[in-house]
Amino acid sequence: METKSGDSRSGRRKFLGRAALAGLAAGAAGKVQAAESEPREVKPKGPYPYADRSRFVKMGRTNDYPKGPFQAMLGPRQNAPLGDQTGIITPAPVHFVRSHSTLPDTDPAKYKLLIHGMVDRALNFTLEDLQRLPSEARVHFLECQGNSSPGHHGHKKFDFVTVQDLHGGTSCSEWTGVPLSVLLKECGVQKGGTWLVSESDDAGRYTYTLPMAKAMEDVMVVYGQNGEPLRPDQGYPVRLMVPGWEGPYSVKWLRQIKVVDQPYMAWDEAMAHSIQRPDLGEKARWYHFEMPVKSLITRPSGGQQLKGPGFYEISGLAWSGAGLISKVEVSTDGGKTWKLAKIQGPVHKKSYTRFTLPWTWDGNEAMLVSRATDERGDVQPSIDQVAKNWGIKADDEWPTAEHAFHFNATQRWRVTKDGKLHDNMYNTSGSSHA
Amino acid sequence: METKSGDSRSGRRKFLGRAALAGLAAGAAGKVQAAESEPREVKPKGPYPYADRSRFVKMGRTNDYPKGPFQAMLGPRQNAPLGDQTGIITPAPVHFVRSHSTLPDTDPAKYKLLIHGMVDRALNFTLEDLQRLPSEARVHFLECQGNSSPGHHGHKKFDFVTVQDLHGGTSCSEWTGVPLSVLLKECGVQKGGTWLVSESDDAGRYTYTLPMAKAMEDVMVVYGQNGEPLRPDQGYPVRLMVPGWEGPYSVKWLRQIKVVDQPYMAWDEAMAHSIQRPDLGEKARWYHFEMPVKSLITRPSGGQQLKGPGFYEISGLAWSGAGLISKVEVSTDGGKTWKLAKIQGPVHKKSYTRFTLPWTWDGNEAMLVSRATDERGDVQPSIDQVAKNWGIKADDEWPTAEHAFHFNATQRWRVTKDGKLHDNMYNTSGSSHA
Repeated sequence: METKSGDSRSGRRKFLGRAALAGLAAGAAGKVQAAESEPREVKPKGPYPYADRSRFVKMGRTNDYPKGPFQAMLGPRQNAPLGDQTGIITPAPVHFVRSHSTLPDTDPAKYKLLIHGMVDRALNFTLEDLQRLPSEARVHFLECQGNSSPGHHGHKKFDFVTVQDLHGGTSCSEWTGVPLSVLLKECGVQKGGTWLVSESDDAGRYTYTLPMAKAMEDVMVVYGQNGEPLRPDQGYPVRLMVPGWEGPYSVKWLRQIKVVDQPYMAWDEAMAHSIQRPDLGEKARWYHFEMPVKSLITRPSGGQQLKGPGFYEISGLAWSGAGLISKVEVSTDGGKTWKLAKIQGPVHKKSYTRFTLPWTWDGNEAMLVSRATDERGDVQPSIDQVAKNWGIKADDEWPTAEHAFHFNATQRWRVTKDGKLHDNMYNTSGSSHA
Repeated sequence: METKSGDSRSGRRKFLGRAALAGLAAGAAGKVQAAESEPREVKPKGPYPYADRSRFVKMGRTNDYPKGPFQAMLGPRQNAPLGDQTGIITPAPVHFVRSHSTLPDTDPAKYKLLIHGMVDRALNFTLEDLQRLPSEARVHFLECQGNSSPGHHGHKKFDFVTVQDLHGGTSCSEWTGVPLSVLLKECGVQKGGTWLVSESDDAGRYTYTLPMAKAMEDVMVVYGQNGEPLRPDQGYPVRLMVPGWEGPYSVKWLRQIKVVDQPYMAWDEAMAHSIQRPDLGEKARWYHFEMPVKSLITRPSGGQQLKGPGFYEISGLAWSGAGLISKVEVSTDGGKTWKLAKIQGPVHKKSYTRFTLPWTWDGNEAMLVSRATDERGDVQPSIDQVAKNWGIKADDEWPTAEHAFHFNATQRWRVTKDGKLHDNMYNTSGSSHA
C-alpha cells in the first residue's frame, strides 16, 4: 500500500474548489503507516455503565446573572452552549436552567402528582402510574421569556460576546410523557373548569397558570428527556412541557394541578413574570403565551475565530412557537442581500430546526445574519423593527428596556479582517443596523 | 382552594375506564397543602456546567461477555438499557459498546484524518477542517451484527432475562458530521477506485472494508452525537457512520481511509467477523451489509413486573437497515391475533421508530410479541421461520448456531399470573413457538 500525492494536472472537479480549506495540509504521502505494520495490542479497558466525556471536551453551561432589582429572587440561571452544539438535540446535562429556588432531591418511589379542583374525581398519580399510561415522545424547544432581552444585555457594551452568553436561555430535547389531556379526562373536568394552576415541589412552590384549551391541545406531563429520566435541574421526576410557549409554563417538579374556573395571577406570575411593555405604555399584558419566530447563527458566531479566507459552512438554529419553520434566509452583508439556507431535516413543530449555508470568506469585513419565517408567515424582525414596534429609539432606549421580553430580533455577527466574530446587535460600534 | 373527591354519579366518560390503573389512589382530598400556605424559601444551589443525574437514577449499561473461543480477542462489550429508555434517542453515555482493543485518548488538536490511495490528491483533514465543511445531522440506529444471536444466548436456559441482556447491542443517536462523499470528491477518486479500507486509531488498528457506492450514498464522517462531541467509547473525536449496515462498518477513532480497487479481507473481517452460515452449508458470505427489519417490546419486557390487572401501554422499538418502518403489529396472545400498533412519529430512515399499543391485562397468562414491516415489504420472521430459512431445527440446534448473526426473530415475552415477564424466545419451557 502506498500513499499517492496530489496530481495538479487532474481535470477532476473538486467539490469545494482547490485550496478551499485554508488550513488543510495536502500531499500527505508517507505520513501514516499502513495498518499491517502495527503491533496488535489488545487490552480491554473501560467503558463504564454510564460513560464519561473525553477529558478534552469542555462544553458546558455558563452562569447568567444580570444585575438589577430582580436578582434577589432569582435562583440558578445557566445558559446552554449553543455555539458548540451540533444537530437539534441539546444534551440534557447542558440544557439551560432558570429556576426560582432550590433543586428538589425527589425519591421517585414517593412521588405523586395530584390533579384536583373542578374534576369529578381527584386523583394521585405515582411515577409508575404515569409510565403505564399512553405515552408520546416529541422534540420541542424551551425558551426563557427573557432570553436575548436588552434587559440582560443592553446596559453595557460587550465585545466578543458569544451566542451562549446572548441567547443561551433556550434548548431543545426529545421529551417523553403522558398527554395532560389523558390525565384530565381520567379525572373528568367539570363544566366551567377553564384554567389550571400548576404547582412545583421546590422550596418556593413555584406556581403558574395555564388555559384549559392549551392543556387539552398538546401539553405533556413528561418523565423522559433525550431517552433517560429528567435531570434534577429539569424537574426530575416529572415536569410539564408546554410546547411553543414561554418557559415558565413548563412547571418543573410538578406536584399538583388544580382545575379552576378563572385565570389566577400566582405569586411567580405577579412578582417575577409580569412584564411592562413599552408598546403598551408600560402596562403589562396579563399573560404571555407563545414564543415568536427566531433564528441564530451558531457557527461561526461571536467569540469564534476564522483561520483565514476559504470555505466555511454557516450553520444555525431556528424555531417558532407557532409551529413549523418554513424557511430561513442568511445574509453575509448585514441584510443587503439574502440567500435561502438549506433546511437540515427532519423539521418538527415547535422544535429547533437546523439550517446551513455554504460560504467562502474572501478575507474582507462581513456581517452574518439569519432571518427565519414560520408556517404562519411570521418573519423574524430586525432589531430596528422591534424598536419601532415598541415605539422606542433602539440606540438610546435599549438600556432602559429591561422588560422587553419575547425578544426575537435578528442577530448580526460582524466578521473583522482578523477573522474574529463580534456581536453587532447590542454592540453596534463601527456599523449601523440594517 | 379545596380538593374535591370523586363523584361516582358522573356520567362523564373516562378515557381509560374506571379503576383502569390498579395502583392509583383516588379521592386525594386534603392530602396536599395549597401553594400559598408554604413558606417561600429561596436558596440558589447548583446546577453545574455539566449536570449530574438524580442519585435515584441507576439506568446504565451491562457487561456482555459470552463464553467461547472468540472471547480472547474481544475488547469492551456493553449492552444499552433498552428497557429503561424512553423515545428513540439513546443517551450517549449508555450507547452500546463493542470494541476490539483499547479506547484511545485522543487530543483533538492533534487529530488528522488521512484520505489517500487511488485519489488525485491525498488530504489530511483536521477536526477543525471537518467542522468547517458542509454538515448533516441525521438520526440513525447502530446494531452489532451478532446482536440477539443464539451464539450469545442459546447455549443456556435463561429466566427473567431482560431486553437489555438479550438485545442491548443496538442504540440510536442523532449523528452530525460531513458526508463522506464531500471528502472523497475533494480528494478526487480515480477511475477504478471502487472500495475503501478504513482504519481506526485504537491499539489494534481496527480495519474494515466498504464499497464505494455505499460511501457515496449516505455514509457520514461524524464528530457529533446527540448534540455534543462523540464520547471516547463511540470514537472520539471522529468515526464513520454507515447507516443501516452492521456495526463493524462504522469504524471508530477513524484515522485513515484508503481508496482501493478491490475488496479486502482485513484482519478484523477475517478473524472476528467472518460468519459461517447454516443456510450456506457452513460457508461464510464474504461481506454482510444491511441489518434486517426488527422490533422489540421494551415495556413491559423480561424481568419487569406488572402490579396487577389493569391498563398498561405496550411500547417498543422497530428499525430496518432498508429504510423506513412502515408498520408494526403487536400480539398479546403469542401471535394468534395481531393488532396494528400506533407509530410514534417522527419516522426516520434507518432509525429507531417507537411504537405503542394500549392493553388491559386481565390477570391471565399472556404472550406479548411485536412484528415489524419495513418500506421494502420485508416482514420480521418468527424464530421458527428463521430456523427454517437456515435449515436447522430450532430447539435442538440453536446452541450450536454460534455464528447465526443478523438475527431478527420476533421476541416473545411470557406474562405469568404473578405479573412477571419472562423470555420466551430462547427459554421456551412451558409453551411452544408460534
